[in-house]
Amino acid sequence: VHPLYAAMAPTIFEHMSALAREHGAINLGQGFPDEPPHPDMVAAAARALTEKSNQYPPAFGLPELCNAICGFYARRQGLALAPEQVIVTSGATEALAAALLALVASGDEVILFQPAYDSYAPVIRRIGGVPVSVALRPPHWRYDAADLAAAITPRTRVLMLNDPLNPAGTVASEAELAMIAETCVRYDLTAICDEVWEDVRFDGIAHRSLLSFPGMAERAVKIGSAGKIFGLTGWKTGWMCAAPALATALGRAHQFLTFTTPPALQWAVAEGLERPDDWFAAQRDGWAVSRRRLGDALDRAGFNVLPNAATWFLCIDLAASGVALSDREFSERAVREAGVASIPVSALFEGDGPRHILRLCFAKDGAVLDEAVERLARFR
Amino acid sequence: VHPLYAAMAPTIFEHMSALAREHGAINLGQGFPDEPPHPDMVAAAARALTEKSNQYPPAFGLPELCNAICGFYARRQGLALAPEQVIVTSGATEALAAALLALVASGDEVILFQPAYDSYAPVIRRIGGVPVSVALRPPHWRYDAADLAAAITPRTRVLMLNDPLNPAGTVASEAELAMIAETCVRYDLTAICDEVWEDVRFDGIAHRSLLSFPGMAERAVKIGSAGKIFGLTGWKTGWMCAAPALATALGRAHQFLTFTTPPALQWAVAEGLERPDDWFAAQRDGWAVSRRRLGDALDRAGFNVLPNAATWFLCIDLAASGVALSDREFSERAVREAGVASIPVSALFEGDGPRHILRLCFAKDGAVLDEAVERLARFR
Ligand SMILES: CSCCC(=O)C(=O)O
Ligand SMILES: CSCCC(=O)C(=O)O
Repeated sequence: VHPLYAAMAPTIFEHMSALAREHGAINLGQGFPDEPPHPDMVAAAARALTEKSNQYPPAFGLPELCNAICGFYARRQGLALAPEQVIVTSGATEALAAALLALVASGDEVILFQPAYDSYAPVIRRIGGVPVSVALRPPHWRYDAADLAAAITPRTRVLMLNDPLNPAGTVASEAELAMIAETCVRYDLTAICDEVWEDVRFDGIAHRSLLSFPGMAERAVKIGSAGKIFGLTGWKTGWMCAAPALATALGRAHQFLTFTTPPALQWAVAEGLERPDDWFAAQRDGWAVSRRRLGDALDRAGFNVLPNAATWFLCIDLAASGVALSDREFSERAVREAGVASIPVSALFEGDGPRHILRLCFAKDGAVLDEAVERLARFR
Repeated sequence: VHPLYAAMAPTIFEHMSALAREHGAINLGQGFPDEPPHPDMVAAAARALTEKSNQYPPAFGLPELCNAICGFYARRQGLALAPEQVIVTSGATEALAAALLALVASGDEVILFQPAYDSYAPVIRRIGGVPVSVALRPPHWRYDAADLAAAITPRTRVLMLNDPLNPAGTVASEAELAMIAETCVRYDLTAICDEVWEDVRFDGIAHRSLLSFPGMAERAVKIGSAGKIFGLTGWKTGWMCAAPALATALGRAHQFLTFTTPPALQWAVAEGLERPDDWFAAQRDGWAVSRRRLGDALDRAGFNVLPNAATWFLCIDLAASGVALSDREFSERAVREAGVASIPVSALFEGDGPRHILRLCFAKDGAVLDEAVERLARFR
C-alpha cells in the first residue's frame, strides 16, 4: 500500500455524513441540497435513459453537452469557448485529478490557497508534485499579493484557485483576480480554476472567470460542475475547459481515469444548461431564502456569522460566538450530542490555520434549518 | 503539460469510434452492444432517478449495491466477501487507476501481461511505477511460468491480470491461475485482477477469481464492471473488492478520483445483480448467438478466426487469412474504405508483438454482423 494512503483518513465530508447517518443527525455538513430535485431535470434524464443510448458516449463528452457548456458560458460569462475546448468528466473531483495529472510533473510546485478542498494536496503529493500553501485569513479571506509572491520559486508551475471559495463562501474581487492573473503571466504558471460555485452567488455580481483575464486564455483550466449548478450532487457530471493544446493533454489524463460519463446524465445537463436565465434565477432565489433563514436563525441564537456571498455554506466563528471548543471538537460532539452535522474548517486547512470556524450548509428546508439551529443553541 | 500526455494519442477505442462516426461505418471496434438495453434495467434506473435521492451517496458505494455485489459473487463464484470489502467506482477504468494509485509507489515494478487494456501502462508510468511486460503469444495466449519468473526482480510489487483476456477473448486455465497465484505468494506481490469479463463466458465453465486461490485473499484486488455484466457500457459503474486493509487504501485513492458514482445507476445495478441465474443465462445465450453468427460468417468468408471462449470479441489472424496488411493498416483503411471499424490488437501491445491480429466486436444485430463481414470480404 502506498504510504500516503496508508496514513490517510476518509474525507471530512464522508466522515461527517457517515456520522450523521449513524446518529440520525441533521446533516449540515457535506454540501448537498435536501429539496427534491427539479422534476424537469430528472424527467430529462429519465427520458434520455429510456429513449437514447446507454452505451459509451464519446470519451471527451457528448457534442450536445460540450455545445451547451459553451453556450452557457457565452451567455452568462461572456466567454468564447469552442466545443473542442471542453472535456466532460465524472464530476469536478475527477476534473481536478485529471488536470493535476496533466499539468504537474515530478518535483513541480503547485500553489494552493488555504483553506482548500481536501483533494488538492493529497493528489498533488501522490503524483509527485509539491503543494505550497498560501494562507487566507478569516473573516474576509482576502488574497494578498505579497503572500502569493513569497510562495513562488523557480519550481512553481501551477496555481490552483477556487473562486467562489469553499468553505468560506467568499468571492475574489476583480482586483484580486487581476493580481492573481498577472502573477500567473509573470511567472509563467498554469492556473487550475475550480469555479464549481460560479453559479451559486448571492451578491448580484456575474461570475468572472480567471480564464477571462489578459494572458489567461492560454494558461487556465476552468473546472465546472453540473452537480453544483443544478443542485444535483449525485449526478457526478463536471467538465474542464481550456485552450486546445491544454485540452488535448487534459483529455489524455481523463481517458485513463474514467474514460467517459453516463450519457443520460450528459443529455439532461445539456438540456438544463439551455434553460432561460429566469429558471436559474428562480433556483438561486430559493437558495437565497434558505441562506437568509439560516443566517437569521444563527444571529438570533447568538452565533457570529462570517461575511459570505456565495456557495451553499455559512461559516460561524465559534470563538466570537463564545464557544470554547475547537471546530473539530465542536463538530465531533455536535453530531453525536446535538444531532447536527457540520464541517470544521480546520479540516480543510493544512498546517497552521484557524481552529474556530464551523461550516454549515443551508441548502435544506427552512424547518430543518430552524431545528438545527435550536439544537446547536441548546448544545453550545 | 506533463511529457507523458504531451506525446500521447487518444485511446485506440476513441480513435476508432470517432472514425466510425465520421465515416458512418459499422462499429465493430470499441466493445459495446448495439441491442437496445434491457428495459427492466433501464426502468429500474429511471425509477430510482425519480423516486430516490439524486444527491451524494456514500463515497464507497450504496450499501444496497455493496451487498448485492457480495451476494452475486457468493452465488456465482463461491466467494465470501463482506460489504466493507467493496468500493464502488465510476467504471472499471477508475477502479484500475485507483488500485494503481493505492498500490504502486515510486520505482515499484508492475508485471503486466501483453496484450493489455491500454490504460494499464500509461497510468503505471504516470504515477511513478515501472511497467514490466510478459508477452503472451497467439493463437492461444498461454501464461508461461518461466516467462513470468524471468520478469520478476526485487522491485516487483504488483501483478496485473486480465482474465478473461481482452482483446484475445481467451481464459486462463485453472493450472495457469494456480501458477500465477503461487508466483504472487512466493514473491509477495499484490495482484490487480481485472475480471470485468467474468460473466461473459461461452465455455460453460464458471469463472474462478484469482482472489480465490490459496494465499490470494489478502493480496488481490478484484475489479468488476456492471457495464460488461449487463451490456450497459455507458453506465460507468464498477467496483473493487479486497481484504479490509487493502480496501481501506483503495477507498482513499477513490475518494480523490471521483468521490462517488450516480446513485440511480447504483440502485439499478444492485437490483440487476439480484436477478435469478436464468436472467443472466438468457442474456448470455443472446450474445452466444451473435458470437456464432460472426464466427460462421468470418469462416465462410475465409478469415482465420482465433480460438476464443469469452468477451464480446473475436480475433482474426490477418496473415493466416491471406491479408498482407498489418492490423493497423487494415483497420485504418477498413473503417474508411470498407465502412467497418475494428481494433488492431497491436495497439494493445507495447514493444515487440504480433501485428496481424484484428479484433471484432460481435455484440451487434445479426444483420449488421453479416453486412460487416461482407464488406470486409469485399475489401480484403
Ligand atoms: C465530494 S463531498 C464534498 C462536497 C462539497 O463540495 C462540500 O461539501 O464542500
Ligand atoms: C473504455 S473503451 C474500451 C472498452 C473495451 O473494453 C474494449 O472495447 O475493449
